[in-house]
Amino acid sequence: MSGPDPAALALNTVTVRERWKLAQAAEGCARHGIGAITLWRNEVAEMGAAATARLLGANGLAVAGLARGGPFAWTDARSRRAAIDDTRCAIDEAAELRARCLVLVVGGLAAGSKDLPGARARVREALAEVLGHARACGVPLALEPFHPMYCADRSCISTLGEANDLCDALGEGLGIAVDVYHVWWDPALEAEIRRAGRQRLLALHLSDWLVPTTDLVLDRGMMGDGVIDIPRIRSMMEASGFEGWHEVEIFSARNWWRRDPDEVLAICRERHRSCC
Amino acid sequence: MSGPDPAALALNTVTVRERWKLAQAAEGCARHGIGAITLWRNEVAEMGAAATARLLGANGLAVAGLARGGPFAWTDARSRRAAIDDTRCAIDEAAELRARCLVLVVGGLAAGSKDLPGARARVREALAEVLGHARACGVPLALEPFHPMYCADRSCISTLGEANDLCDALGEGLGIAVDVYHVWWDPALEAEIRRAGRQRLLALHLSDWLVPTTDLVLDRGMMGDGVIDIPRIRSMMEASGFEGWHEVEIFSARNWWRRDPDEVLAICRERHRSCC
Repeated sequence: MSGPDPAALALNTVTVRERWKLAQAAEGCARHGIGAITLWRNEVAEMGAAATARLLGANGLAVAGLARGGPFAWTDARSRRAAIDDTRCAIDEAAELRARCLVLVVGGLAAGSKDLPGARARVREALAEVLGHARACGVPLALEPFHPMYCADRSCISTLGEANDLCDALGEGLGIAVDVYHVWWDPALEAEIRRAGRQRLLALHLSDWLVPTTDLVLDRGMMGDGVIDIPRIRSMMEASGFEGWHEVEIFSARNWWRRDPDEVLAICRERHRSCC
Repeated sequence: MSGPDPAALALNTVTVRERWKLAQAAEGCARHGIGAITLWRNEVAEMGAAATARLLGANGLAVAGLARGGPFAWTDARSRRAAIDDTRCAIDEAAELRARCLVLVVGGLAAGSKDLPGARARVREALAEVLGHARACGVPLALEPFHPMYCADRSCISTLGEANDLCDALGEGLGIAVDVYHVWWDPALEAEIRRAGRQRLLALHLSDWLVPTTDLVLDRGMMGDGVIDIPRIRSMMEASGFEGWHEVEIFSARNWWRRDPDEVLAICRERHRSCC
């Protein structure tokens, strides 16, 4: 197993955004030799898409992804329309930023509902509805299967198998973001990464699963501090032809969000080399 | 969809054990018309197996299950031997109590390891080694797939599909405990329950997934308070021929464990009727 390409390191701004605004994050990436960034729509909204594109360009940064389209957990025709329209806007923004993909977080159960098959059907319906616009704009959509502990409230798409089924059903323009935190436990992981193949594999997100984990959302670990065999997953991805960014995305209220972001980025760099 | 058989209600003692010892739980079940109990080995150890059997008999209680065999997360030959021997003792106790099954919690990664395929292979090896004794004692072993959020530290068997694969590989005497809390999110749930079939379906555990969930281990909900479509899962089980107990197993440090157990059992009874 060869080591990771150091030039592939990318940063999801959530990793440092408790302390850094987008401009600081972009400059921080440049300072630490990080070549790409994934940013969030609220950050783009704050600065404007054109100014954001200039900022990233000035710092030599590619856009690994825009977070995010969805959710599609609507409860009526009006919220359905709003969800679809909002994702269409996100596609436009991703196009303007020349993002490698728009990451989709599809949502869980609708409020008050226990109908999980219905929620999954709704996701398929929403994807079918936005995919044409994404194709027209040249923006690949990256379905991100979320850990099953988020099935109720964040994403009812929990496995790579489901994501591949949706890609099979809906065709070109729809791909997958593989976040090791969400999928590391899946016994079908290797088979489903192979099934996805080069064309669909749009993103690789990195963090680690801590033992114990003290919060369902905000307690992700730095690569190397947990139990995920990240090199194995990266190698599976590369064996399928993946050549994209290795994007660090750490939600960590008790640790990494409290630290000096320059320290965090230096450690990301080191752990990318030694643990990924 | 017909309602649940009220006579099928059973209690896992963990639901009340912060306030009640086993004797109180047994009497409580009798008082509330609950016909079966699942108890834990430390409770049996405290009272002795013969006295435990007498207590349960005096209260008219069947033993839905004994918790538990495993874990099999050994790190060397000595801890391997201890794990196997301990599960053999658990089988003996289950036989003495005439338990419907011995529930297996197979363990996660070995300490310091990130080798998930290795952990899963170890589970298969352990099952193969204890299964003969279980068959000889007439004690069905119930593999319990755990929610993927426990993959690292409690059970590396995360899906019904994996449990069915192990049953296929190892044959008679090995079955499955279906805990709605662990498996409700699984897109393959219905297919895998059907695949398991009557012979393998040894137990149905009930609680609910709360939104939000504030603790990975100790924040399960009472049936009806969360998002799991329990009647749908029960119906899947029954469509496959399951006629066993509907066992309430609620780990809830912030709510149900603090309440008067008589109140808890009355609510279990009511929610079994209205929400299961």
